[in-house]
Amino acid sequence: MVRSRSIRTDEDHADRGQALAHHLADGRSVGVIDQTRLPHRFATVRLTTLEEAAWAIKSMVVRGAPLIGAAAAYGVCLALNADASDAALDHACDVLATTRPTAVNLRWALAQMAAAVRNQPPRERVAIAYARAQAIADEDVAINAAIGRTGVALIEAVARRKSDARVNVLTHCNAGWLATVDIGTATAPIYTAHDKGIPVHVFVDETRPRNQGAALTAWELQQHGVPCTVIADNAGGHLMQHGQVDLALVGADRVTARGDVCNKIGTYLKALAAHDTGVPFYIALPSPTIDFSMRDGLTEIPIEERGPEEVTHITGMTADGRIETVRIVPPEAAVANHGFDVTPARLVTGLITERGVIAPQADALAAAFPERVERGSSPPGL
Amino acid sequence: MVRSRSIRTDEDHADRGQALAHHLADGRSVGVIDQTRLPHRFATVRLTTLEEAAWAIKSMVVRGAPLIGAAAAYGVCLALNADASDAALDHACDVLATTRPTAVNLRWALAQMAAAVRNQPPRERVAIAYARAQAIADEDVAINAAIGRTGVALIEAVARRKSDARVNVLTHCNAGWLATVDIGTATAPIYTAHDKGIPVHVFVDETRPRNQGAALTAWELQQHGVPCTVIADNAGGHLMQHGQVDLALVGADRVTARGDVCNKIGTYLKALAAHDTGVPFYIALPSPTIDFSMRDGLTEIPIEERGPEEVTHITGMTADGRIETVRIVPPEAAVANHGFDVTPARLVTGLITERGVIAPQADALAAAFPERVERGSSPPGL
Repeated sequence: MVRSRSIRTDEDHADRGQALAHHLADGRSVGVIDQTRLPHRFATVRLTTLEEAAWAIKSMVVRGAPLIGAAAAYGVCLALNADASDAALDHACDVLATTRPTAVNLRWALAQMAAAVRNQPPRERVAIAYARAQAIADEDVAINAAIGRTGVALIEAVARRKSDARVNVLTHCNAGWLATVDIGTATAPIYTAHDKGIPVHVFVDETRPRNQGAALTAWELQQHGVPCTVIADNAGGHLMQHGQVDLALVGADRVTARGDVCNKIGTYLKALAAHDTGVPFYIALPSPTIDFSMRDGLTEIPIEERGPEEVTHITGMTADGRIETVRIVPPEAAVANHGFDVTPARLVTGLITERGVIAPQADALAAAFPERVERGSSPPGL
Repeated sequence: MVRSRSIRTDEDHADRGQALAHHLADGRSVGVIDQTRLPHRFATVRLTTLEEAAWAIKSMVVRGAPLIGAAAAYGVCLALNADASDAALDHACDVLATTRPTAVNLRWALAQMAAAVRNQPPRERVAIAYARAQAIADEDVAINAAIGRTGVALIEAVARRKSDARVNVLTHCNAGWLATVDIGTATAPIYTAHDKGIPVHVFVDETRPRNQGAALTAWELQQHGVPCTVIADNAGGHLMQHGQVDLALVGADRVTARGDVCNKIGTYLKALAAHDTGVPFYIALPSPTIDFSMRDGLTEIPIEERGPEEVTHITGMTADGRIETVRIVPPEAAVANHGFDVTPARLVTGLITERGVIAPQADALAAAFPERVERGSSPPGL
């Protein structure tokens, strides 16, 4: 999604147009953008083994539910490159499944890969795996393009009502092209609107503790020329109370069969404010993010707890261009660091999917994705 | 409020037991803790002129509604030291009134000072001013002690219900002894409970963008030995959804006649989550924080907008002990930085004041402080 603007890059990297790309040069390795270094440095990492793929997901070099799914799929390919046995396939799926607990796309992609490879002759598995991984990645791009086409209508409707005055969208965390293979989920309608000449402006939640909003979403919106304003996570409620937000639009890490939405910690607070102030609150998601095996998001979805250093320390750039990590809480302070929260379906206006805007209700979701419901909790198809 | 534990101090400072103290040695200057340097450095500043007092408030060397009031009162004393004329008094009040717009205690204290000094002979004004400023400071300590005695009953009630299991309080920003002359407002019930042996634990919102929770509240709770856990501002809703918060307790910068509460940005979001999850949401405040001249907090209270650098940059300590300021958002990113928001009275469980727990309703507030209502918007008395 890096288009008109040039990006400062630390290394020659042919794949910088997407957040993840299969290297055609060697036919094996996978290139990803190191998202832990943005916005201060643009650097890429080449993944060549299962262990490197698992490390990239766990350390959040790649993050974002759809991108985690695609990276895991290629992680299986890298494992099979070294050993195409059933045991190696099982081991790869086990290792990758435990890297992150919350985003269901990871488990979905691994199930897809295992189903595609399992009953094939070992000597054909590598080629089949790369083809399936590439299909997952391509599908992600196509899904996000469809989300953009569907979601842009919501932004256009606001623009018409406001007589083409600026449409203000609030977003949380990064559900942009950096979180997917390309285009993004929550950003897809925004980029589509911007490209159509609709005057759209985005309030970007900083998104502590990892600051994916300020570090990633603001960065990618800037790259694309979309006007945006970074705000503290605390500020969204105030802006909504004062009519400064026309709609809220975020991504998801897992959505249950009845429409409960698990997303980056703090999403629930913004959904409450949107509900209290009458601001529409939309979730943009590819259907692999729906987990039809779960209903009650609050009690059923596992919430990742991450290390305290994400809260106690922060990395940035000094005035003279050095990257420094500083401690910002008192030494010895205890810290809790939950990565996600659950927004009950009752607070969600609609789910923007590749099959249109779906009401956050069990019957509506089942009607939109009947092939997923029938298969229950077994590996879902698209 | 610095008691049993020793504090590393950069300089010999006799007044470090309170956030603000009149220096007895010279009889004129005022010592304050430089809150912009905590938690990394404990340093104090001696204020000797009106300009220094105004700078200390504006730059947030001193902050917190009650402490701003006391510092402004002493700022008038410092001005009168140099010139005790009516013109100098008016000038001092004008300069100090414009330092911060939201906390009403500032205007309340200046009105108190002007009323005390105005009709007195110039040669007696300095002594009268210091006496009145000292009374305001002493009154603040007494009020907070009363808030502690009242509020501790709420914590005790939870402890009884939980059979003495840990009582979990969530707080936002710093309404501790650093925000007042001593004891604090929201912290008063917490310190009182802890000192009575009630097992109380505090979830401390980091409170971006200035991090007063992590930098000040966690620091002062640690100094006093109160167990606490720092969390990102995004996390409180999740904790409340999962029954990990027994009550929320925050301070206020201004409370209207009908009980709308203006406090640090993000308070509204936590009040929404508390309301949604059935967690009691209390505000601790001294009565000078009530502005009986206003009813609708959302439309009437001026909300301070501060500079973008509070969002774009952050200061902390490197692993080798250097204090560094780093940029954490992309260069050229636009930023909005509202300092406060308004929590409608309907989301507030009760107002903990020096006259007991008051319902957030116009008639209840008027009944509790009848002498304030009669005087309307003229300078209120205690």
